[in-house]
Amino acid sequence: MNSAIDFIRSSVTQGLSIAVVSHKNPDGDSLGSLLAMGLSLEKLTKNVIFVKPDIIPEDYLFLPGLEKMKKIDDINTDIAVLIVLDCSDPDRLGLNKILFESSKKIINIDHHISNTKFGDINIVVPESSSTGEIVFDLLSKAEFPIDTEIATCIYTAISTDTGRFSYESVTKNTHLIISKLYDFGINGYNINKNLYQKRSLSRTKLFILAVSNLKFYEDGKIAIAKVTKDMYSKTNAHPDETEGIVEFLRDTDGVEVACLLKELNNNDIKLSLRTKEYVDANKICSLFGGGGHIRASGASSTETIEETEKMLLQEINKYL
Amino acid sequence: MNSAIDFIRSSVTQGLSIAVVSHKNPDGDSLGSLLAMGLSLEKLTKNVIFVKPDIIPEDYLFLPGLEKMKKIDDINTDIAVLIVLDCSDPDRLGLNKILFESSKKIINIDHHISNTKFGDINIVVPESSSTGEIVFDLLSKAEFPIDTEIATCIYTAISTDTGRFSYESVTKNTHLIISKLYDFGINGYNINKNLYQKRSLSRTKLFILAVSNLKFYEDGKIAIAKVTKDMYSKTNAHPDETEGIVEFLRDTDGVEVACLLKELNNNDIKLSLRTKEYVDANKICSLFGGGGHIRASGASSTETIEETEKMLLQEINKYL
Repeated sequence: MNSAIDFIRSSVTQGLSIAVVSHKNPDGDSLGSLLAMGLSLEKLTKNVIFVKPDIIPEDYLFLPGLEKMKKIDDINTDIAVLIVLDCSDPDRLGLNKILFESSKKIINIDHHISNTKFGDINIVVPESSSTGEIVFDLLSKAEFPIDTEIATCIYTAISTDTGRFSYESVTKNTHLIISKLYDFGINGYNINKNLYQKRSLSRTKLFILAVSNLKFYEDGKIAIAKVTKDMYSKTNAHPDETEGIVEFLRDTDGVEVACLLKELNNNDIKLSLRTKEYVDANKICSLFGGGGHIRASGASSTETIEETEKMLLQEINKYL
Repeated sequence: MNSAIDFIRSSVTQGLSIAVVSHKNPDGDSLGSLLAMGLSLEKLTKNVIFVKPDIIPEDYLFLPGLEKMKKIDDINTDIAVLIVLDCSDPDRLGLNKILFESSKKIINIDHHISNTKFGDINIVVPESSSTGEIVFDLLSKAEFPIDTEIATCIYTAISTDTGRFSYESVTKNTHLIISKLYDFGINGYNINKNLYQKRSLSRTKLFILAVSNLKFYEDGKIAIAKVTKDMYSKTNAHPDETEGIVEFLRDTDGVEVACLLKELNNNDIKLSLRTKEYVDANKICSLFGGGGHIRASGASSTETIEETEKMLLQEINKYL
C-alpha cells in the first residue's frame, strides 16, 4: 500500500493526470470506491478523470460525484495513472478496457480472491470486506482528504458489499471504519433509505412475481428463481431491477445454494449465486466463465434459460 | 447510570437475589438485553433469576442462556432487585408484571421515548439505538464481565432493533460497540445467518401470500398488507411468522407509512407500523392504545380487520 501512496503522491505533485475506473455493470462497492478515490484525489489535484461505467443502477443515483463521470469517448486527455477499483480482471472493465493501452501506470485496488494482479502496483486484499474498506484504509494512511461526500461513498461501498454488515468478511475493522465515517458527518439513515428503502413499484412487482414462482431442489438445499423476458413486460421492470431476489432465496431455512437466472435474451442468461456455508459459489460460476466471491458470484450463459438451469443444477449437485 | 451500577454492586456483595425480565411478545432487543444482563450478573453472583417471557420467537432460539429462563410459576425466591429491560410500561410485562409486587427495588433500563419511568432507578436513554446499547455501556462502565455469549446477545439486541444498523438512532457509538463485540470473539456471520437467513418455508409462503395482496393508498404513500386467519391455514404458518413483511412494504419507493394488519382472531387484530420520514408511528399507535418509536410502533384493535384498516387509514391521513 505504501508504494501506491508514494506513487500517487508524486503523480499529484507532478500534476499528472489520474483516472479512476471500475467494472461494467457496477455495484455499490465499485461505484462507491471509484467515487471516494476520485473525489479525494480531486481535492489534491485538478487532473482527475472519473470514467463512467456502462450503466448506473437506480439505487446509486444519490451518490455524490456521479455528475463528474465522463464517457470513454469523451476522454481526450492522456492518462498517466489509471487506478482500477474492485476489478478482478481487466476484461471486467468492458469497453473501458481500452484505457489500459493509453495509460502509463496501472494501480489495481481490489478485494476479489480471483484478482489476476494485472497492475503495475497491486493492492489486492481478499480478506477485506470490500474495496471500499481498502480505499478508506489507503486514504487514512496517506492522509488524503475525506469529507462527508467521500465518507458517504465509502459507507455505500462497504454496506452493499457486506450484505449490510452480515458477511463472513466483516471484521472489527469494518465496523470501526463505519464508526469513523460518522465522524465525517455521514447521515447513515439517509444512505440506508436511498440504498434499501426505494424499491420501485415495477421492481416490487417483479420481485413478487419471481419469488411466487421459486423452486426448491435437493430437499430444499437449492432454491432457484427465474426471471424471464415475459416477466419484464408484465411488470414494466428492467432486467437490472432484480436486486434482492437471490438474497431472499438464500435467506430461507435449509437453502445452501440460491440461484437467480435472468433472461436478458433467448440465449443470453445471467446467473447470480449465493451460498450459505460450504458450497463455493466462485468455483461454480468460474465453470460458466464468471466468478466473484466464495459466498456470492455471478456468470453468464449462452444457452436457453431451461438448459442453463439444468447445467447449473448438475454442477451444484457435485458439491452438495 | 452510576447509581444503578452502585446499587447492583452492593446487591451482589450482599448476595441478594436479582431477577432480569423484559416485555411479553419479545423481540431481539428485549431477549438479547435480558440475557446479556443476566449472564453478566451470573458471573458475579449465584442469585440471578432469568424470567421467561410468554413466547420465544424461533429466530432467537440460538441465543445463549435461554435454557436458564424460568417461568413465573416456577419462581419461588423472593426478589430483592428486579431489572426490567426494554419495557416502556409495567403492563408490557404481561403476566410477569406480578413480580412488581414482590420485588423490593426496580431498576428500569430502556430506550423507548414513551417510557413511564416506573423504576426506583431509571436508566432511560431514548436517543440510544437499543436497550442492548445501554446494557453494553452499563456493563463496560461497571467493568462487569463480557464474554463471547454476552457479546452475541448484545449484537443481536442492537442489530435487530436498528433494522441492521439502518435506523436514525444509529450513531458512531453503535458501530463502535459492534466493533468491540468482535474483540469478545463474536461470530458476526453466524449471528446474521441465525437472525436473517433461516426464514422457515411456512413463513416464506406466508410472506409471498401477504405481499402478493398488498394495497397502496394515497398515491402510494400508504402501503397495507393484511394477514388473515385463512392465510395461516393455507401456508401452515403461525401468526408470529410475519417478520419482514411490514419492512418490505416500507422499503417501496414513495411509501411513507407501511402497515401490517394481523388477524389473530375475528376481533383481535395486531397492527405494526413503519414510517420513513415525517409521520410519527408512535403517535398513531398510541391512539390504538399501543406505541413504540417514531419510525416503528405497534398496537392492537378489537374491531374486525376491515374496520381496523378503515380507522387506521383515517388516522394516517391526518398526518400525510
